[in-house]
Amino acid sequence: MKSTTEKKNIRLIIAYDGSSFYGWQRQRDKPTIQGTIEEKIAVMVREPVSLIGAGRTDAGVHALHQVANFRISSSLTPSIFLTALNAQLPPSIVIKAAEYVPFDFHARYDARSKVYEYRVLNESMPSPFLTQYVWHIARPLKVALMEECLRIVEGSHDFSSFCSPGDGKINPVRNMMRAELETQREDFLTFAFEANGFLRHMIRTLMGTLIKVGLGRLSVSDFIEILESRGGQHPGAKAPPSGLYLRDVKY
Amino acid sequence: MKSTTEKKNIRLIIAYDGSSFYGWQRQRDKPTIQGTIEEKIAVMVREPVSLIGAGRTDAGVHALHQVANFRISSSLTPSIFLTALNAQLPPSIVIKAAEYVPFDFHARYDARSKVYEYRVLNESMPSPFLTQYVWHIARPLKVALMEECLRIVEGSHDFSSFCSPGDGKINPVRNMMRAELETQREDFLTFAFEANGFLRHMIRTLMGTLIKVGLGRLSVSDFIEILESRGGQHPGAKAPPSGLYLRDVKY
Repeated sequence: MKSTTEKKNIRLIIAYDGSSFYGWQRQRDKPTIQGTIEEKIAVMVREPVSLIGAGRTDAGVHALHQVANFRISSSLTPSIFLTALNAQLPPSIVIKAAEYVPFDFHARYDARSKVYEYRVLNESMPSPFLTQYVWHIARPLKVALMEECLRIVEGSHDFSSFCSPGDGKINPVRNMMRAELETQREDFLTFAFEANGFLRHMIRTLMGTLIKVGLGRLSVSDFIEILESRGGQHPGAKAPPSGLYLRDVKY
Repeated sequence: MKSTTEKKNIRLIIAYDGSSFYGWQRQRDKPTIQGTIEEKIAVMVREPVSLIGAGRTDAGVHALHQVANFRISSSLTPSIFLTALNAQLPPSIVIKAAEYVPFDFHARYDARSKVYEYRVLNESMPSPFLTQYVWHIARPLKVALMEECLRIVEGSHDFSSFCSPGDGKINPVRNMMRAELETQREDFLTFAFEANGFLRHMIRTLMGTLIKVGLGRLSVSDFIEILESRGGQHPGAKAPPSGLYLRDVKY
């Protein structure tokens, strides 16, 4: 049993509508998810708090299940945080669960894999309800060609061609355990991606390239060439953040 | 064939996210659906235009299929309006179709019935994505009791108990052709109501009362008593506009 003076580690499961935030990561003078939640916790515990998120989502990207942890001296319990935070946070951020975890648990470093989904509305007319929640593609997509590319992308690859500058010298090889068109209900497509880690803008660049294939602007062999060029060829296509959701983090 | 100087009547099918509008009906200095669309049409045709909507939805109420018509001297075709309006309107309003209709077609007077749906999220936690699009009820609902009430409401009734003041002396008898829990997927409930006409706030007051029954705050016989009192007893419950959608208009 921990004494009340010992530091404790609390894990939060968080869902958020990223539309009106400048992404997860704290920024001076701009509303972010991390910044907004940290502020509310700090007021409650009267000590500075650092909230570690599993995935640092970009501006406009959503989360169905973000995992984050913070360490505090306060004896306030997880269930108090759950209730108080949900009462104080804007409705676009919902804390779904809170619990104690071992002191050394780290939401980002300990993650074995993350699952993202990308939602596309493939209909001639856009939906007034989904402007911030999907990528609307008006022209019909050749879905079978996109699925061919998805199968190619599965497994371990150097994903340099599908990342934006800014990742510096990190290892660009990632293991994509799953890349598939998961569901297709009428004109609503959901793609799922699971990997042990993602490079900067990797899914958005992959999705942007896949849509080019679906529209016939790139062939499947163009796609393979881009992947195999390991950054030599850039597809120059980045899907909007609106369709992207962090859906799960596995430990 | 009509000559180009003859007045023409054009029908629009419109979908909109009502969250950021003060309802359908034109108001001075406040953004409304009717006002926003009329303004864009007037600029195109250089004549004042009156857009007649089938249903005058309240502030925050949505439409999947609103029907409206306007009469003009301009020879601009429906397909030009479709393209130009969608290019100029905010993404929260989408014109789904436009076509010529006989000159005497009137979107409101000619409607035989209207179909509304009401969406409820019945889950302990709210969804950050649905704040403006459902009514979130955290406690479990006794759905079977609500369905009993829905069956009672079908047919011709004096709905005075379920309307807000403001309808003046109009006939409070309406024929409810359909009132049902249409779908229940996990914790997401969709109710459908079809009638030859609705009194002011009728569906929202009905839904508010039904939820009271579902939560056990009113019994089914309380509900029957309220209905049969013909305005003598007011349930004092009005569901929020966020869950309400105009879904269809039949002619």
